[in-house]
Amino acid sequence: MQQIATALRPDAQPAAFAGVVEHFASGEGPAGVVVICEHASNALPVEWPELGGDLGLDETARAAHVAWDIGALGLSRELALRLAPACGGAVLVHAPLSRLVYDLNRAPDHPGAMPERSEVFDVPGNRGLTPAQRLARTRALYLPFHETLRAEIASLIARGRRPALIAVHSFTPVFHGAPREVEFGVIHDDDTTLTDAVMDAAPGCGLTTRLNEPYSAAGEVTHTIRLHATPLNLHNTMLEIRNDLIATPQGQAGIAARIAPVLERGLHAVGAV
Amino acid sequence: MQQIATALRPDAQPAAFAGVVEHFASGEGPAGVVVICEHASNALPVEWPELGGDLGLDETARAAHVAWDIGALGLSRELALRLAPACGGAVLVHAPLSRLVYDLNRAPDHPGAMPERSEVFDVPGNRGLTPAQRLARTRALYLPFHETLRAEIASLIARGRRPALIAVHSFTPVFHGAPREVEFGVIHDDDTTLTDAVMDAAPGCGLTTRLNEPYSAAGEVTHTIRLHATPLNLHNTMLEIRNDLIATPQGQAGIAARIAPVLERGLHAVGAV
Repeated sequence: MQQIATALRPDAQPAAFAGVVEHFASGEGPAGVVVICEHASNALPVEWPELGGDLGLDETARAAHVAWDIGALGLSRELALRLAPACGGAVLVHAPLSRLVYDLNRAPDHPGAMPERSEVFDVPGNRGLTPAQRLARTRALYLPFHETLRAEIASLIARGRRPALIAVHSFTPVFHGAPREVEFGVIHDDDTTLTDAVMDAAPGCGLTTRLNEPYSAAGEVTHTIRLHATPLNLHNTMLEIRNDLIATPQGQAGIAARIAPVLERGLHAVGAV
Repeated sequence: MQQIATALRPDAQPAAFAGVVEHFASGEGPAGVVVICEHASNALPVEWPELGGDLGLDETARAAHVAWDIGALGLSRELALRLAPACGGAVLVHAPLSRLVYDLNRAPDHPGAMPERSEVFDVPGNRGLTPAQRLARTRALYLPFHETLRAEIASLIARGRRPALIAVHSFTPVFHGAPREVEFGVIHDDDTTLTDAVMDAAPGCGLTTRLNEPYSAAGEVTHTIRLHATPLNLHNTMLEIRNDLIATPQGQAGIAARIAPVLERGLHAVGAV
């Protein structure tokens, strides 16, 4: 046994994919809300075989909801744009690659972080990953994304603003053959404050709205919230929108026009903005 | 209101001080314990006036416990060295600069992160910091340190090991004029499992040992634990050793010889190693 290494920085990586940041300014100072979209992209690291390349997926799987949250990025942008005026600005942080390469809303040892199978699709490129391969993806995707998000949040906090965090997801209308009636799900983690306020503000928005549907935090779907909101006691909630409603830019704008006022009322009610 | 910027990375900083990493290998695979020493150093960024320079402190203040946890780094190294064989290796991550520049165990909006006064010492270089100055230190110190630590932990987890986190601190024998009898404090955050096991193993170690003394987590002294252990459900505890016992290398080795077996029994009891 001996001391074998001293390093000031994690090793430089051959490829690193940070989160993508978009700022929606109101001209008033640090933003009061951070919108997070961990499943924004279905891009695959085709030029980086060490990160799985095309994962052995065909076009059907790459376009399906298993690869990304369909419509979630467009909806996130529309929400950030609409929330910015009332919130003193908004920040959007979204994923650069498909969740099948690394699901940024899962810890590195979660089976779903690099799933071998997702609903009806096998993911050949994720079969039998070695520890070294899991580590390479963790370093190339998980750490840079969350560092991007953390830096944005810390920047707001250091300047005196405590932003609310809103994670935006979409879900498939039919899962394992069963249709889902819920259109707008609002999911809480340990701190239910903002979620409760959003639910209180939801009636009249015109969407079938449910608390903790189609999932609850019990399924470990709130990893990002636990990493970023809970340690700093930031208001937080997670939204799930049925993806048939937001498959087009028109649908995204239409749903954002219904949901943004609900979020704004919820944020006001808890004193977040 | 408009979208004003898109960036793949936080801005490059003029100076960045990452955590310092030391690996204590056992030759068996990923380490089972990460020792953290956020107050290891009393170094000041004298060449970087934009980070506060010498903070206007004289030599007395720079050498005092307000600037660092006296003896904590030496003790941390001795503990990591002694724990490594039973834990499949140990990782030590420690601070490169004084906590008076940035207290890495505090969130960026905590008054103690860049304190204007600490016990009996004024810190002139921290007086009336602007938001931009707070942000510069957050980016130069807080974010890089915690990213270093996070990368080490994620690297272990991705390779199939769930390390226990042990934060090592020291405290002054006399605080605001009052002597302290406790020699070895064990502090828990929300998850008391490992702390309870360490307390159970402590009798006979020859030190006056107390639970949640001289501080408890109610004082927001467990920020690092909340950032790194809680979201991943990792076993964790925080140690406080009276600094008169560990002011010399001999003292550090002697106290480590008493505490390391206690920690090892505690880690075994909870199944962490």
